[in-house]
Amino acid sequence: MTPQTATPAYRRLSVEERRRQLLDAALTLFAHRAPEDVSLDDVAEAAGVSRPLVYRYFPGGKQQLYEAALGSAADELRQCFDEPRTGSPLARLTRALTRYLTFVDEHGTGFAALLRGGSVAETSRTTAIVDGVRRAAAEHILSHLGATDPGPRLRMTIRMWITAVEAASLIWLDEDKQPPAGELRDWLVDQFVAALSVTAARDEQTAALVGTLTRDGRD
Amino acid sequence: MTPQTATPAYRRLSVEERRRQLLDAALTLFAHRAPEDVSLDDVAEAAGVSRPLVYRYFPGGKQQLYEAALGSAADELRQCFDEPRTGSPLARLTRALTRYLTFVDEHGTGFAALLRGGSVAETSRTTAIVDGVRRAAAEHILSHLGATDPGPRLRMTIRMWITAVEAASLIWLDEDKQPPAGELRDWLVDQFVAALSVTAARDEQTAALVGTLTRDGRD
Repeated sequence: MTPQTATPAYRRLSVEERRRQLLDAALTLFAHRAPEDVSLDDVAEAAGVSRPLVYRYFPGGKQQLYEAALGSAADELRQCFDEPRTGSPLARLTRALTRYLTFVDEHGTGFAALLRGGSVAETSRTTAIVDGVRRAAAEHILSHLGATDPGPRLRMTIRMWITAVEAASLIWLDEDKQPPAGELRDWLVDQFVAALSVTAARDEQTAALVGTLTRDGRD
Repeated sequence: MTPQTATPAYRRLSVEERRRQLLDAALTLFAHRAPEDVSLDDVAEAAGVSRPLVYRYFPGGKQQLYEAALGSAADELRQCFDEPRTGSPLARLTRALTRYLTFVDEHGTGFAALLRGGSVAETSRTTAIVDGVRRAAAEHILSHLGATDPGPRLRMTIRMWITAVEAASLIWLDEDKQPPAGELRDWLVDQFVAALSVTAARDEQTAALVGTLTRDGRD
């Protein structure tokens, strides 16, 4: 037998590369099935590795793998909000929403299972990861709006809008991704401006921001 | 010893009365503590009965009691939306929101723990109970608006607003119930009109509804 050094059964990956490979396989599975319907066997098979190898990387089993995959998805989601400070604030929000909806589109089922709650894989730790992403989104938005010391009404408005965007994403997934992502995005941006405008009637800080948003337009 | 028939240690309650008494005691405890921090002993003590009695009514233990208490709270919440058809639709929404915020105020911690998710007491059954209340709220609103065959955009707008109201309630509890309930309520009604108005620009059915809302005013 000739040793086939050029194509080993398992290509040698670094620890970090292997971990990444397993998480990617898990995320792909979670994108199509609820967390409770994905086994470590499934992940091993999808990644083309043995079950013991998956256990070596995630000795805590399925729950640990799920939380690691969720943490990885959360990092990816945070990157959606990391928007360069060019163009008007509404143009930046539009770009961030485009990336966010692409993420929702790609992670479908896993995203929905997580936000819906009630999953057996859900714990206070997974809830904290999701809340962390929400907080990061709110901070990014306030920072892009130039609100360095946001009052309670402004903060409440932003957080309500973020929750409404999550709800819209879940409904969008349920309704076969209708309307098209671009239309949904523009409608969400309009909802953002409308929500701030309502608060502006009761809050000077928000009124000043809405003035700026209107002046800067969407380019 | 003289038998004290006038004040027995346990007043004889019917099965339904006893069940109601235990659920009320549980709901009061859940209003101040997270579900995982409430034991059957606590419920027995609060209701002034023995632990075995609590188990006789809820043989499934803590989880069964929690789900029954949740179901009872959900019924109470549904009654908040059961609004007579007098006055304009916005006046009815205002009255329903007043009752809803009273409920949130009274059920504080338990309400928050449930909506926040990640509670150890949360299962697909508890999630289904909460989703049922959301659906009921959406149906009530659409019915009061006279929308017998609501299209996807109108439905999405209503469901987004309901989620935003939940988020606002949680933030409100976090922020020592500021602003006062009446102000929060009026602001939420304004957000409702603003959200529908954004959708109206893209959807004829919603545009017709907004026209009616504006014409009918808030009395």
